[in-house]
Amino acid sequence: MPAPLFVTFAAGLEGGWRIDRVTAVAGAGLLVAPWLDVREGPHADDPNDADLWRLRGTTSNLRYTTSAENIRLTSIEARLGRPAATRAALIPIRKVAAWWDLPQDERRAILEDRSHHIALGLRYLPAVARRLHHSRELGEEFDFLTWFEYAPADAAAFEELVARLRQTEEWRYVDREVDIRLSRDR
Amino acid sequence: MPAPLFVTFAAGLEGGWRIDRVTAVAGAGLLVAPWLDVREGPHADDPNDADLWRLRGTTSNLRYTTSAENIRLTSIEARLGRPAATRAALIPIRKVAAWWDLPQDERRAILEDRSHHIALGLRYLPAVARRLHHSRELGEEFDFLTWFEYAPADAAAFEELVARLRQTEEWRYVDREVDIRLSRDR
Repeated sequence: MPAPLFVTFAAGLEGGWRIDRVTAVAGAGLLVAPWLDVREGPHADDPNDADLWRLRGTTSNLRYTTSAENIRLTSIEARLGRPAATRAALIPIRKVAAWWDLPQDERRAILEDRSHHIALGLRYLPAVARRLHHSRELGEEFDFLTWFEYAPADAAAFEELVARLRQTEEWRYVDREVDIRLSRDR
Repeated sequence: MPAPLFVTFAAGLEGGWRIDRVTAVAGAGLLVAPWLDVREGPHADDPNDADLWRLRGTTSNLRYTTSAENIRLTSIEARLGRPAATRAALIPIRKVAAWWDLPQDERRAILEDRSHHIALGLRYLPAVARRLHHSRELGEEFDFLTWFEYAPADAAAFEELVARLRQTEEWRYVDREVDIRLSRDR
């Protein structure tokens, strides 16, 4: 877990990922553009007039994961950038104030004890690689930007993971969610 | 716990708080200036050539506090801006990568089970009002900026609190700390 990595996801006329569809799952959606550019590092935030929209976030330390869970995660998780992973999803979400008002133990109880968020994700490793970005403290319109990469053969498994998460108690606290699906040539 | 509040602490030739002293507790210090200006809200980050230095952070959700601890805290804690609280401290700290690499349960065990950070702070309430700002995800040179306000009569109690925290296991993970003491007229 290195220092926070600043990442901007920029939609516009160029980028490494083709935007296949944009779905407004809850609340307002986002404009459709042909390409998504993923910019990392200190200059990721530089203005670019060609962008239709930009979502900014940073990687960070673990917020809920325990030591035992982390050992399982790190032993099995896949890295981003695998050549066969030509499908991706960017899922920005925002949670209601009632979520953020909860103390740490109550959020953990909802997220894992009752919604099994971490355990669910583990079942889809290493097929689905994942990186979480935090946006709330950057003053962004979403709280989290989660980025997923998988091979076309694992697309059905990914749909199942997303559908199961959306049925959890944790997701009752989500009041805005957009699901952006992407692809690239191998 | 409202939405994150963006705060800039700017040292320079004007501000609401007189800088009485700046002590480098661990690692590099900060330049001494006559005044500290505390800027809050969306424009807190606007550039100002008159600033000698600026430290930026945001308030956020609770990261370690449990429900039981939070009930005690909120029943006793004092607000900022009390007229009698004419002394303040701004204590920026940075923790080593080994801290941030720990999963949530291990950080909680060090911070509270073994260092009693929350319980210690509770003993000095409501004399010492406190607001924590997170800076790590903003790409700042410190991870946290903690702001304290207290009356002159409570200065000895505040020194005791700070000294006890610095002796904890948690503080072994602090590799940079600056202690800035301030005052204002009533």
